[in-house]
Amino acid sequence: MPVSDPFAVMNTVGLVAFALVGATKAIREEFDLFGVTTVGLATAFAGGALRDVLVGRVPLALQSFGEVALALLGVAFAVGVGVVRDDADDHPLTAVADAVGLAAFATAGAIVATDHGLGAFGVVAVATINAVGGGVVADLLLDRAPFVLFEDFYASPAVLGGIAYVATSAVGAPARAAAIGCAGVVVLARIGALTYGWEIPTVHAFARDGRS
Amino acid sequence: MPVSDPFAVMNTVGLVAFALVGATKAIREEFDLFGVTTVGLATAFAGGALRDVLVGRVPLALQSFGEVALALLGVAFAVGVGVVRDDADDHPLTAVADAVGLAAFATAGAIVATDHGLGAFGVVAVATINAVGGGVVADLLLDRAPFVLFEDFYASPAVLGGIAYVATSAVGAPARAAAIGCAGVVVLARIGALTYGWEIPTVHAFARDGRS
Amino acid sequence: MPVSDPFAVMNTVGLVAFALVGATKAIREEFDLFGVTTVGLATAFAGGALRDVLVGRVPLALQSFGEVALALLGVAFAVGVGVVRDDADDHPLTAVADAVGLAAFATAGAIVATDHGLGAFGVVAVATINAVGGGVVADLLLDRAPFVLFEDFYASPAVLGGIAYVATSAVGAPARAAAIGCAGVVVLARIGALTYGWEIPTVHAFARDGRS
Repeated sequence: MPVSDPFAVMNTVGLVAFALVGATKAIREEFDLFGVTTVGLATAFAGGALRDVLVGRVPLALQSFGEVALALLGVAFAVGVGVVRDDADDHPLTAVADAVGLAAFATAGAIVATDHGLGAFGVVAVATINAVGGGVVADLLLDRAPFVLFEDFYASPAVLGGIAYVATSAVGAPARAAAIGCAGVVVLARIGALTYGWEIPTVHAFARDGRS
Repeated sequence: MPVSDPFAVMNTVGLVAFALVGATKAIREEFDLFGVTTVGLATAFAGGALRDVLVGRVPLALQSFGEVALALLGVAFAVGVGVVRDDADDHPLTAVADAVGLAAFATAGAIVATDHGLGAFGVVAVATINAVGGGVVADLLLDRAPFVLFEDFYASPAVLGGIAYVATSAVGAPARAAAIGCAGVVVLARIGALTYGWEIPTVHAFARDGRS
Repeated sequence: MPVSDPFAVMNTVGLVAFALVGATKAIREEFDLFGVTTVGLATAFAGGALRDVLVGRVPLALQSFGEVALALLGVAFAVGVGVVRDDADDHPLTAVADAVGLAAFATAGAIVATDHGLGAFGVVAVATINAVGGGVVADLLLDRAPFVLFEDFYASPAVLGGIAYVATSAVGAPARAAAIGCAGVVVLARIGALTYGWEIPTVHAFARDGRS
């Protein structure tokens, strides 16, 4: 993996981070070792597999053993932490790992979508799907409602990152700079939302004055 | 968009109608503006994206900004209505918009499946998936059980429309006539089911005499 | 269908068995006849359609009427049984049919993945997805939590079968022998788990001594 390949860097970071986060959640729910591994791999692979199917290619995770090894590394780390700590799911470092994975996969999605010639909306949509796909699948497997995505300012950082990627590319920035910009926007927006409790207004909030 | 292209007409109607219905449901559930837009776009795009993946092409919504603009139009209309009315979700016009979207997407699915050389079952299946995909995804995002599809005589009108498309095509009707027949059957069946409370018998109903 | 074609044999067995199981579950939940047929077809087709999309081809079920006829045969059998018995869902034969379908589809998935040149992980993953896809979709349509897959030693037999297929192929066994080995491992592991209540340890079980 040459460091000059932004996709490889982002994909590696995303796979390890999301496998770690997914496996940690499954350990907290007292899944057995098979379930923990499955949730970890599914969290790591779901977004990328959906991205690959949408752009019309066989998912990388099914073709390359390197992808599997990276995800298993994340699962192994989660299991190691889970043996010594009961509450890893709530630890701030898990939230940071999730934000890093979100940023890495949003960027990986934006790169793949751009390489496949999609337009601006396609790049933002694929970046978002790549980023949030893992969390949605983890929630479904853990029997949690996936719509928590909307309450937690979780998908919107990925959307903002995708827009940053499109905008920096449009003004002629090289792929590596666009990748760094995208990943930076996602991490800052996600950590900022967690730290300061950012919220987006509802339609009813706008209507309140007129109706009450 | 030439009016002589049945797919373009049906796709346009379906995108606006389903974005409106999905966004209206999300407003009722007090989602924030980002969530309302996401549910609206997902409701508008889900069925067509699944259709496109099944026939092996990159989803139109990722390639064409026109698709996005039409869906955003539906979302904007829903937000405008939501500011002045609290209960748009229950209004009969929302049910009509949903029936029109169902009919338009069933027809769009039947046209695409036929163009890709699928057989009779494939055309009916893709028409149904294209039509109900948006509602299923909206229900999942809103944390409602998707099986309400079966209780509401919702998917069966799309199946009947797909059968009408295949049947009229088989007897040599031109594509535009088959499209009108399909859309008409879906709208009439759906509105009829809502108005008259049509139900399909269960297996237990057949067995009642023999067992009790 | 020549008996010498392992895929055709496994696919036929899987379609009839899973359509039967899915329709039986839907009858127990008092779905109407349309719902019963839909759940039966979806249970029969979901795993294979996901497999086909992942390897980049149009799902067989959309192209071939033979697939539909086999699934409808399974649904018809379930309806016939449902008219005379109330509790077919709990009958041991339904569990056996489910195990047979699981084995047949795991094998079919392993064969297709191997034919498309996927590596060892890809073959095991596609075998597992092909095998469990139907049950997951049935659970979603019936509004049950899909994570029961993990509690019931349900997906792990498919993983073991996929590994058996890869291992026997790697030592030079012909495709038919690898198929028989895969199917045999899945059926034995699934029936054994049901009979003896096998469980996989959790991470907390390993940690108990160190923490308590």
